[in-house]
Parts: sequence; structure tokens; C-alpha cells
Amino acid sequence: AVAGSARAEGNPEVKWRLTSGFPKSLDTIYGAAEVFSKYVSDATEGKFQIQVFAAGEIVGTFQAADAVKQGTVEMSHTAGYYYVGMDPCFAAGAAVPFCLNSRQQNAWLYHGGGSELYNAFLAKHKIYSLPGGNTGTQMGGWFRKEIKTLEDLKGLKMRIAGLAGQTMAKLGVVPQQVPGGEIYPSLERGTIDAAEWVGPYDDEKLGFYKVAPFYYYPGWWEGGLSLHFFINTDKWAELPPHYQAIVTAAAAAANVDMLAKYDAKNPKAIQSLVAAGTQLRPFSTEIMQACYAAAHELYAEISATNADFKTLIDSIIAFRDQEYLWFQVAEYSYDNFMIRGRKK
Amino acid sequence: AVAGSARAEGNPEVKWRLTSGFPKSLDTIYGAAEVFSKYVSDATEGKFQIQVFAAGEIVGTFQAADAVKQGTVEMSHTAGYYYVGMDPCFAAGAAVPFCLNSRQQNAWLYHGGGSELYNAFLAKHKIYSLPGGNTGTQMGGWFRKEIKTLEDLKGLKMRIAGLAGQTMAKLGVVPQQVPGGEIYPSLERGTIDAAEWVGPYDDEKLGFYKVAPFYYYPGWWEGGLSLHFFINTDKWAELPPHYQAIVTAAAAAANVDMLAKYDAKNPKAIQSLVAAGTQLRPFSTEIMQACYAAAHELYAEISATNADFKTLIDSIIAFRDQEYLWFQVAEYSYDNFMIRGRKK
Repeated sequence: AVAGSARAEGNPEVKWRLTSGFPKSLDTIYGAAEVFSKYVSDATEGKFQIQVFAAGEIVGTFQAADAVKQGTVEMSHTAGYYYVGMDPCFAAGAAVPFCLNSRQQNAWLYHGGGSELYNAFLAKHKIYSLPGGNTGTQMGGWFRKEIKTLEDLKGLKMRIAGLAGQTMAKLGVVPQQVPGGEIYPSLERGTIDAAEWVGPYDDEKLGFYKVAPFYYYPGWWEGGLSLHFFINTDKWAELPPHYQAIVTAAAAAANVDMLAKYDAKNPKAIQSLVAAGTQLRPFSTEIMQACYAAAHELYAEISATNADFKTLIDSIIAFRDQEYLWFQVAEYSYDNFMIRGRKK
Repeated sequence: AVAGSARAEGNPEVKWRLTSGFPKSLDTIYGAAEVFSKYVSDATEGKFQIQVFAAGEIVGTFQAADAVKQGTVEMSHTAGYYYVGMDPCFAAGAAVPFCLNSRQQNAWLYHGGGSELYNAFLAKHKIYSLPGGNTGTQMGGWFRKEIKTLEDLKGLKMRIAGLAGQTMAKLGVVPQQVPGGEIYPSLERGTIDAAEWVGPYDDEKLGFYKVAPFYYYPGWWEGGLSLHFFINTDKWAELPPHYQAIVTAAAAAANVDMLAKYDAKNPKAIQSLVAAGTQLRPFSTEIMQACYAAAHELYAEISATNADFKTLIDSIIAFRDQEYLWFQVAEYSYDNFMIRGRKK
């Protein structure tokens, strides 16, 4: 009560810095941080300013979680799976192969105990997270040659990271780390054979279809990537409760807004990519099933030595299996009819 | 500037009343208004209070839009399609048969010009709307007997309203208006043959499976029902800009929260309904295709005499057709594998 009464009534001036995990060229995903920042500023008569910096302006993408942990910046907007090098648990709130789609991510995070579990882990790194965007199911990436069988994966040099890269490695793929700006020349020269990025709207800008015409789907390693706002726990605790409430609502608003923006932009992009010569290809059932098995083998291996990961992945998988029992009824049958049935 | 400077800095006291279109028993959908109201209160140190009233406490469900229009209450949280009697355009922002799923609703409303078109229409009724929740694809309702062919629809007395009822009527169904609390006894007595409500979580509470065991899917008239906050335009204009920003973010936060809650609750409910003897049945392709054709016939008829409706439905249908071209690629193929492929 004393601390509370010492605070000025109304809206005190607060200035924070946010380091995005993304370049400005990914305007939908980078833009979610600006949408969030504007909500917060508008809600506080401009008194709570959160300045958004693109990846690399303060720290790079892969340093963002550590910058929040150290208090170099108050917060970040990023994808947790960039930090699997610090701990594979970081991926659990973002996307893990063959798990939740975007709606199920939100259901698990907001109402399935997901955010509580993720934050219990993140607290060890002095991070408090709020879901802050989703891409929907991503594409499986660009390939210079068709891949039809498991044999075609062997020795394939693919730009793919994190748990997805480790899953692919079990099947003979050689995962490569290539920054976004170098993917095109690497594909062109044949230094790499394949690369995954995001989805049609973002991928189109980088022109991959000119050098790797086969565009595979679905991106089974990101059935519904959740972005998060990562906030330093000390800085979070210093905020007045009504600023915490504003940040919480603004993050949720940015979450729904970002997916809506992708869903509005991707349809034109996929058509334009196909018109430009992109060849759409589904991953074969043989490849999907082998990757599914490899991913779950990987989860068992990590779980054997990482109790936090086991807690998180067990929760996700149990939730996922329940969700798909329901989604196959109304949701899937509706989409199925709208895609296939009404054409007959 | 004069009006602005006359206002107190910070957070002035404002008290509003919100009439929900729903009873408290629908805790997920009714609860979205309480989630919203709490965000607004918490963000303003309790200075902006929005008291939530259940349907019937101030006005009934079907009077809520008019109560906002007349200024009897400042706002409502409701489903636009309840007001098709005032104008069929009211349904366009909520759900129209065989149109958008929940993600596509958000994409159209937030980034496809949907909210602008809907608000241009609603302004004629002194209403400003913000999307405020979604149910996902609903179920097709409870039937005392199996229906397999179009012949089985003839003379069927079904509790179904609005554009869905008018679509069904074209195929011989006799739509019935029955309040929620009277559905069970009406089905039990056989006064009606079928009734649609929401989905597993809500339907389970009312016990329909005991008197009408066939539970059909999908609810093609609500591929992704959007709820809205309806706000009186004069009251909206009176709010300080930062209160408008808070209301806007809180509505979006309630939007994503409500769907997440349904998605977390429905899986257990559908399993428990099946365990209790519910018989799940998909609508036959014959019935789906005939209903699809009837719905589009209805849209043409209404459009012929209602220019606002034509503007809205043309926008929705063009958007929908683009969306499903994209959704069939990554999103649908991912869900398809997760539902069917991984089991093999």
C-alpha cells in the first residue's frame, strides 16, 4: 500500500526498448511489435513509450532472449525456438514439429496451462512471456529438385534450424545455418539444395522461386508458430498494475491481428508465385510419416535428460491429441467441404 | 483543442452498461464480455467501469441492437445475425452460411475491409462495432431421427433462425423460433424434430443427447461465428481517445481469448457426449450441396433489393474464394495429416 500510494495517479512516463527478432522486411511479423507498441502508447496518452528496434539494431535475433535476461533491453518480440541453443524448452511455447496449429496454440497457451508452464521455465531466465502473434501453418520451403522418397533426403543440404533441423538430420538431411539475406545466393550457387523461410507473402519478396522452383507443403515443423513478447521479469514487476493490464491486452490484440494480416496477404501471394512458375508439391506420405516418427524420437531423447522439456512436450502432445479428436468433426469437415465438396 | 483541454488528464470516471445477447449459462460466450470489461477496468485503474448484464436483465437478446441504437445502454456484446429482422446486413459481420471460417472472419474483418463495410452499414443504426469473439465452426444440431437425403428434410420442424432458417426453408424445412430454455422439452415432446444450438461444450449442459441422439456436423451456417461489441456511436465519440484505444485492444483481446476457451473446452465435451450415447453424423454430400446452392440463391434474392447486403456479401464471397485457395495448401494439408495421416 505504501509503494502504491507513492506512485503518481494516472499514467506515469515510462520508456522501454523492444528488440524484434525480425528484420523490417518481414513487415507482418515485425509489424506486430509496432501494432503492440502503438496500442500501449495510445492507451496511455503517449506516456508509456515502447520503441521497436529491428533485429541487429541493438542485438541480433539470436541474442534477443539473452538481452532481455540481462536487462540490456526491457523486452523483445521474437520466436522462442531461436533460443534452443540455450535450452530446447524455449521452442515449446513457439512451435515444435507435428504439434499444434495456430488455434490450438492459443488454446493451449491461454486456456490449456501452456503459458503457465512456459513462464515457469522462462522465469529461470528472468523472462515473462505473452503470446504475441502467429503465422498459421508455414510452408515447407523451396527445393531445387523434387524430393519424393526418403532416399531423396539423404545428404540434402537444407537451411533449417532448431528441432526441425535435428528431426531432419535423423533422416540424413544436413541442416545449414544461413541468414535470411544469404539464402537466395546460396540456393542459386547450389551451396544449399533447399531452404525454409515462412510462407507465400514473405517468401515471394525474396524471389526464391527463380532458383528453387519446388515449393513444398506443409511446414510440419510449424503447424502454427506463436511469436511471443519476452519481458524482463524485474522490469515487468516495476510496472504499475494498470500498465501490466494494458501490455497484456495489447499483446493479445497484436496476437490476433498478426495472424489476420497473414491470412489476408497470403492468398494473393500464393497465386502470384504459381503464376510466376512456382511448382507446388505436397510432401509425400512416406516422408511425412518418417519425419513424424523422427520428431517423436527426438522428444523422447531430449526428455530423458531435460525434465522441463518433458513437462512441456508431454503437456503439448496430450493437448494436441485431444484437440484433433474435436477438430476433425466440425472444423475439418467444414473446411473440407469448402475446399473440395462444393466444387462438384 | 478546447474540448480536449477541458478534460481531466489521466483516467476520468466513466460508467457504462453492456447488455449481453447471451445467458450466463453460456459461460464462454457470455464470459467474453466480462473478460473485456475486466481488461478495460484494469487498464484504467478501475476508472472506466463497464457493467455486464445477461440477456433479459435490461433487454432481451433480440432487443440488444435497438437498445444500443436508442442509447438505452452504451453497448452490447452479441451476434449480429440476431437482428436480421431489422436488416439482413446485420448477419454479414457475424456469420452467413457457407462463408468464412474463424480465421478468415478475422482476416476479412481486420484486414480485408470487412469491419469498414460492416460499420458503414451499422452507422445507419448509430452502432459502431468491434469484433469480440468467435465460436469456431459450430455443430449442425440435434436430430431425433437420422436425415440422409433431401427427402428427409421435407416438413422437418427445426429450431433454426435467420439466413440459415431461410436457406433450410427452401429445401422444405419448417424453421421454428424456440428460446434456449424450451428446446429440450420441445424435442422431448416432439413439438420440434431438430434444434441447433452451439457446439459440444454448450450443448452438453442442456442434455439434448437424451431426447435427440443424432448430432450432425458441420454447422455450415456458422463456419466461424464472430461476436461483436456494438457501441452507440454518440457514446463512442464522447470517450477520450485513450479510452477508445483501450476498448479497441480489450475487444481484440476478448476476441482471441473466447475462441481459445472454446477450443480448450470442446474436446472433452465431445468425448463425453459420445460416451453418453450421442451418435455423430456428417451431413450427406447431397444435403450439403443442396444447402450450398440454396444459400447462394438466397443471397442473390436479398441482393436484388438490398444494395448494402449486396456490397457486403459480394465482398465476403470474393474474399472466401481467395482464402480457400490458400488454406487448402499448408493449413488444410497439415490438419489432414494430423487427423488422418499419422495414424497409419
